[in-house]
Amino acid sequence: MIALQGKAAAVDRAQVEPPGGYILGAEFRLPMRVYYEDTDAGGIVYHANYLKFAERARTEMLRVVGVNQTNIRKDYDLLFAVRSCTVEYLRPAMLDDGIEVRTRVTRIGGASVEILQDVWRDDGCLAKLTVRIACLNSSGQRPMRMPQAVQAALKRFESETMATSVGGS
Amino acid sequence: MIALQGKAAAVDRAQVEPPGGYILGAEFRLPMRVYYEDTDAGGIVYHANYLKFAERARTEMLRVVGVNQTNIRKDYDLLFAVRSCTVEYLRPAMLDDGIEVRTRVTRIGGASVEILQDVWRDDGCLAKLTVRIACLNSSGQRPMRMPQAVQAALKRFESETMATSVGGS
Amino acid sequence: MIALQGKAAAVDRAQVEPPGGYILGAEFRLPMRVYYEDTDAGGIVYHANYLKFAERARTEMLRVVGVNQTNIRKDYDLLFAVRSCTVEYLRPAMLDDGIEVRTRVTRIGGASVEILQDVWRDDGCLAKLTVRIACLNSSGQRPMRMPQAVQAALKRFESETMATSVGGS
Amino acid sequence: MIALQGKAAAVDRAQVEPPGGYILGAEFRLPMRVYYEDTDAGGIVYHANYLKFAERARTEMLRVVGVNQTNIRKDYDLLFAVRSCTVEYLRPAMLDDGIEVRTRVTRIGGASVEILQDVWRDDGCLAKLTVRIACLNSSGQRPMRMPQAVQAALKRFESETMATSVGGS
Repeated sequence: MIALQGKAAAVDRAQVEPPGGYILGAEFRLPMRVYYEDTDAGGIVYHANYLKFAERARTEMLRVVGVNQTNIRKDYDLLFAVRSCTVEYLRPAMLDDGIEVRTRVTRIGGASVEILQDVWRDDGCLAKLTVRIACLNSSGQRPMRMPQAVQAALKRFESETMATSVGGS
Repeated sequence: MIALQGKAAAVDRAQVEPPGGYILGAEFRLPMRVYYEDTDAGGIVYHANYLKFAERARTEMLRVVGVNQTNIRKDYDLLFAVRSCTVEYLRPAMLDDGIEVRTRVTRIGGASVEILQDVWRDDGCLAKLTVRIACLNSSGQRPMRMPQAVQAALKRFESETMATSVGGS
Repeated sequence: MIALQGKAAAVDRAQVEPPGGYILGAEFRLPMRVYYEDTDAGGIVYHANYLKFAERARTEMLRVVGVNQTNIRKDYDLLFAVRSCTVEYLRPAMLDDGIEVRTRVTRIGGASVEILQDVWRDDGCLAKLTVRIACLNSSGQRPMRMPQAVQAALKRFESETMATSVGGS
Repeated sequence: MIALQGKAAAVDRAQVEPPGGYILGAEFRLPMRVYYEDTDAGGIVYHANYLKFAERARTEMLRVVGVNQTNIRKDYDLLFAVRSCTVEYLRPAMLDDGIEVRTRVTRIGGASVEILQDVWRDDGCLAKLTVRIACLNSSGQRPMRMPQAVQAALKRFESETMATSVGGS
């Protein structure tokens, strides 16, 4: 059960960048591990933490196409704010699980975006999130038109089919 | 600033396992990104979250040498509990930073381990943690001798030099 | 601005129980403070944390009518699980804000409950949550009929009017 | 086990302010409840969360003597930053526990403070924290002398006896 060789050797190399996920079709996928910090006394991932997982995935999705949220705040005086979020919990993730957040953009408006995010484990979909994001000026006071370049970046992940998801939700 | 080519292409591949860090000498290194969830209204990483980063790193360090905490609980009726923790905050990590937790074992006792963990950014060390871990039976009631195999796994990361760390702490 | 007298004196007394909120009509209200841990680098409460606030409020609502989740797990082999959650973010809460979660039950089914929760500050409603809770057996594997006593307790907070809430959501 | 009368009636009144703790001698005490969000899959409070509990208590301790951290940032261009923290974990807190953080100031320097914080449950002390706080200018770049009024406020909680604490720590 406990072996010093094998897997350890395989990762015995420098890895300068934090893990950034990958693209499959129009979908961005970010694998992650469930740690103690994510779980609760019910033995499962605490329900609010799926929103954290989803936000990590949106951040890396944007980075992978060159959009860094710190930079767009400086360059365009723009920030993204979550306007609404719906989560459907299908099955619980557990400690030590390897999970993956799969993200796609379903609607790109002038000053808002709608994003679908599914949390997967190898045995199926665990949770489904629909997140509406607004673009605001950096003080957060009023809506702001998304810069062309940000819209173009988001289009990389746009998908019209919402029907690929699990179940009748 | 925003480019659809380049980096995106580079990661355009399947990545089945969550990121697991790497070994350098006797040190285990886990790179990670700072997300919104980690920061606070001061604009920096909330101080308690360095303990989360450190725990992620200890978990992956054990996994890389084949020790899965869920399994050892089942196989040996054993769990690890943090007995004490000292954190020294040198410089704050910020949103979007790429950081790395560097972990080494400084003392392996019969039923306890002492671990040193430094959080690095490319411009230097941000925080230093000393964590004392106890092995308990799975109900958490009494100390338990570490199985031989777990001790052997931890020895992979044992290092006698505590003097490599930054500053006079 | 800084005064040693006054408010300090007013609270200079023993307070054995943690704060438990209060009932107004059919509504349960739990006041709380926004701390650094709740905020993010945007200077506002991190969006996932409204789900934590709401869960605290549901816990105290049940306690106030004698339902302790640890006990019902033991006595009835029952646990509550969040099935779905919708959050609408209207205005951000900020560091040091005094806020209040106002909770009412909108539907009590045989094995599920629907709960509406609004987060208020003195200048208005900040966020609105709709939470669907399922009753499961304690292993979380299958739905379970709510005990009569728990149903009765929930009825204390049942309200048919969903129309009191802010805006057109 | 489930009763609609009694405790519910007792709290059936408006409570405009969030709970703010109380003073006993030179000690500030903040009672709080352990919720699901605080626990982990080990069934106990996640070790990093004791730092959150302690920070809530320091915030309320300052508020009770009129020091509001948002205000001092504006008025004095000053912020408090945690420089180091040592936590000793004695016994775990569990879901639904009523706990209390007891805080006292052990050293007030020109630009720093040392604070001792114990987390109690009715059966004894669960954790002990020693926290060193620095006063910085609001950009966090350099140490700043504490204003007279803040020093005076902290003196309210100064205590020379560190020997009252549990155990040999």
